[in-house]
Amino acid sequence: MIPLETIRAMFCAKSVAVVGASANTEKTGYIILKNLLDGGYAGDVYPINPKSESILGVKCYSSLPNVPGEIDLVVVAVPAAAVPEVMRDAAAKKAKGVVIISGGFREIGNVELEAEVMGIAHDAGIAVVGPNCQGLNYTPNKMCASWPLVQTPGAMAVVSQSGTIGAAMQGWAAEDGIGITAMVALGNKSGIGEIELMRYFAQDPATKVMALNIEGVSDGGLFIETAREALAHKPVVVLKPGRTAKGAEAAQSHTKSIAGSDAVFDAACRQFGLIRAEGITEFYDYCKILGMLAPPGGNRVMIVTSSGGSGILASDVCEDLGLDIVRLPGALAEKLRESLPAQCVAANPLDLTGDATAARYQTALDIALEAGNVDSFLVIFGDPIAGACEVVQALRAKTEKPIVVAYLGGGEVQLEETAKMHRTGTPVFPTPERAVRALGALLKRRQAPNAE
Amino acid sequence: MIPLETIRAMFCAKSVAVVGASANTEKTGYIILKNLLDGGYAGDVYPINPKSESILGVKCYSSLPNVPGEIDLVVVAVPAAAVPEVMRDAAAKKAKGVVIISGGFREIGNVELEAEVMGIAHDAGIAVVGPNCQGLNYTPNKMCASWPLVQTPGAMAVVSQSGTIGAAMQGWAAEDGIGITAMVALGNKSGIGEIELMRYFAQDPATKVMALNIEGVSDGGLFIETAREALAHKPVVVLKPGRTAKGAEAAQSHTKSIAGSDAVFDAACRQFGLIRAEGITEFYDYCKILGMLAPPGGNRVMIVTSSGGSGILASDVCEDLGLDIVRLPGALAEKLRESLPAQCVAANPLDLTGDATAARYQTALDIALEAGNVDSFLVIFGDPIAGACEVVQALRAKTEKPIVVAYLGGGEVQLEETAKMHRTGTPVFPTPERAVRALGALLKRRQAPNAE
Repeated sequence: MIPLETIRAMFCAKSVAVVGASANTEKTGYIILKNLLDGGYAGDVYPINPKSESILGVKCYSSLPNVPGEIDLVVVAVPAAAVPEVMRDAAAKKAKGVVIISGGFREIGNVELEAEVMGIAHDAGIAVVGPNCQGLNYTPNKMCASWPLVQTPGAMAVVSQSGTIGAAMQGWAAEDGIGITAMVALGNKSGIGEIELMRYFAQDPATKVMALNIEGVSDGGLFIETAREALAHKPVVVLKPGRTAKGAEAAQSHTKSIAGSDAVFDAACRQFGLIRAEGITEFYDYCKILGMLAPPGGNRVMIVTSSGGSGILASDVCEDLGLDIVRLPGALAEKLRESLPAQCVAANPLDLTGDATAARYQTALDIALEAGNVDSFLVIFGDPIAGACEVVQALRAKTEKPIVVAYLGGGEVQLEETAKMHRTGTPVFPTPERAVRALGALLKRRQAPNAE
Repeated sequence: MIPLETIRAMFCAKSVAVVGASANTEKTGYIILKNLLDGGYAGDVYPINPKSESILGVKCYSSLPNVPGEIDLVVVAVPAAAVPEVMRDAAAKKAKGVVIISGGFREIGNVELEAEVMGIAHDAGIAVVGPNCQGLNYTPNKMCASWPLVQTPGAMAVVSQSGTIGAAMQGWAAEDGIGITAMVALGNKSGIGEIELMRYFAQDPATKVMALNIEGVSDGGLFIETAREALAHKPVVVLKPGRTAKGAEAAQSHTKSIAGSDAVFDAACRQFGLIRAEGITEFYDYCKILGMLAPPGGNRVMIVTSSGGSGILASDVCEDLGLDIVRLPGALAEKLRESLPAQCVAANPLDLTGDATAARYQTALDIALEAGNVDSFLVIFGDPIAGACEVVQALRAKTEKPIVVAYLGGGEVQLEETAKMHRTGTPVFPTPERAVRALGALLKRRQAPNAE
């Protein structure tokens, strides 16, 4: 097992060499070099290419041994046959980590070539990511040795067997402005995998939630043991597709993963408090909410909305998930009726109706806050309500209870208010259903047996 | 029952009066007037406001009787107490339709006031939308008597009890560039409702799919009878929240709808071929695909992807929905192996791997097209693949079978290619799961007993 210290040295690398750096803008060796430079990486960057003087204005070296300084991380984007030599050079340079982007190994039957490369790495104590992967991105070190370039720092560390799923998660996080701490694409997963990375991110101060996309688990006992330790520190969300026979077959073709019994995996998740995502949308939503909010004290939820229809959609999903839409205490309902216009429905969901303003939300939420039997708030904005963010901020100043927002049907105002809320730490979802399902995941974190 | 001819005259109004037009930019009477003007409505527009000379550069009239010309449609945004007089004036002017934005009627217990207004309308044969609603938008007439302003013409007619759900559907359709034909917000649904509108949109040449968001059905038999007639012409997608006890209770509070037995409604949908959406995301996705593609001939699907992980996610949902991921004929698999790089997986899903280019997709799809046992194609782009749209266009030129696309993890390139595909009539979904569920809805349309 690679020591944590080595993995830390890889993520916090003070120097990176890109072997196979290229001036051809379509090559991975160009894209990664460019993303490192554009991402503002502050360490030394060494493009390795025997045929170029410089690429993107950075001096090239013909090979790793010719680099004058130390190299912490080597990113490899050359044909598979050349990788053993690169790994030997990396070992000689005492590199801490090697990310092998190149494909052409086990996934096409080149088992021996892969074994040769991994043997060299093993003897030198090098942490290997890949081969056949989409690289790694670590925002605390501004080190995007992957693509696309995502620079927004955030709270979620994405560990993904699938490069596409990792890229999609990063893309959505960047779009939402909530960012990531890390993305590590596992590819063939011949070096470090979810075990080492759960250990690393469990102690990584920037990471608040781990997102794990895996297609199979080689050692179930070790996986559970490691997950339990990680879960003591922070939540772990798992996307493990291949639930069905056809899906498992596709997983087997993809990464030679044996999916195992899905029912067994699912039961283990429930027992030990891993939060399983049903699909890629939930994978993102659950990580988003768990990176932003602490769990509620219980399952009782108060829904405040300007859209009656959205309140009904939310109610259905609450009932599906066992979230309790509590009855408001009579005195509070009375107070709401007195303070709100006649068309409002002083119940739960509390319907402020389509002409609701930020001020009406404020009035309603201040009263709802007095309810002793509420553990969390779902605030739905179903119209272009300016000042929505300020309302939520004011509420957050008065309570520790989690506040989840759904915003829809609000045009330009919605975009602005959503961006403001994300900047200030409130998760906003584009539909009532997604907001409720995310709240359900947050509640699961509370119910985890081992949580801090 | 209001005759179809009257409803048509309302949608195709050659003149619109806005009663309660205002210069105050926060008032509905301002917003609707502005949207009519900004949306490029070509008919006559008459702002009605006794205290203004002109608003937004358009001459004002003090009341409806003072308008010199004819008025086809009257939009009302004045306090409830003033609405009976407006309705009498509208009757005197022989208006075909009146959209009552104003609230303050049945929803707050003012049953008699609403009955008075509806009585006048009934005697005059006026089609009423509302009261207490978010108006209507009809793009073939460039008439956005609603908010937000959505001008993009498209194929779906949205009939929504909830203004927010209607606005959200319009917003997503505009964002995707696929647009709408109409949005009608029903509000209290005291005038025309889903019955009249299903009849209208069934014969509206611009509409290819109807989106129905309802909270209750007053006459189940009439609803089914009308739906069956409509379904003979085009697909109808229904979002009827209130599935659960808590949801039904919320629906009852919202629009006094009696949700009825959800199981009975669901069974009726299945029997008669109404396509029921599980939530608002599916409501949009199903309307989107049904507005763009004809149903497949059967349930056999071929998946082509650059992302193995996405292929597995898609496979799971296919299996959930009974879509058959057929085995490729042996000769075809052999041909694919010969024509594609070694790392590709010549199966179904056909995994072209992360370095796939548009050219590789073209090669693969040309071969896959020869498979006789495939009814539809799911093409997943899981990387920034430029030229994706051209590949799909070339495929469409060679087959009538539906082609559904999922695009994710592709950054800027993805945005560009998705926009191009939507412009050229290919539906693109942001996750493999959403794409497969949409394909499932398309297949349900084929299975509808009564479809053309």
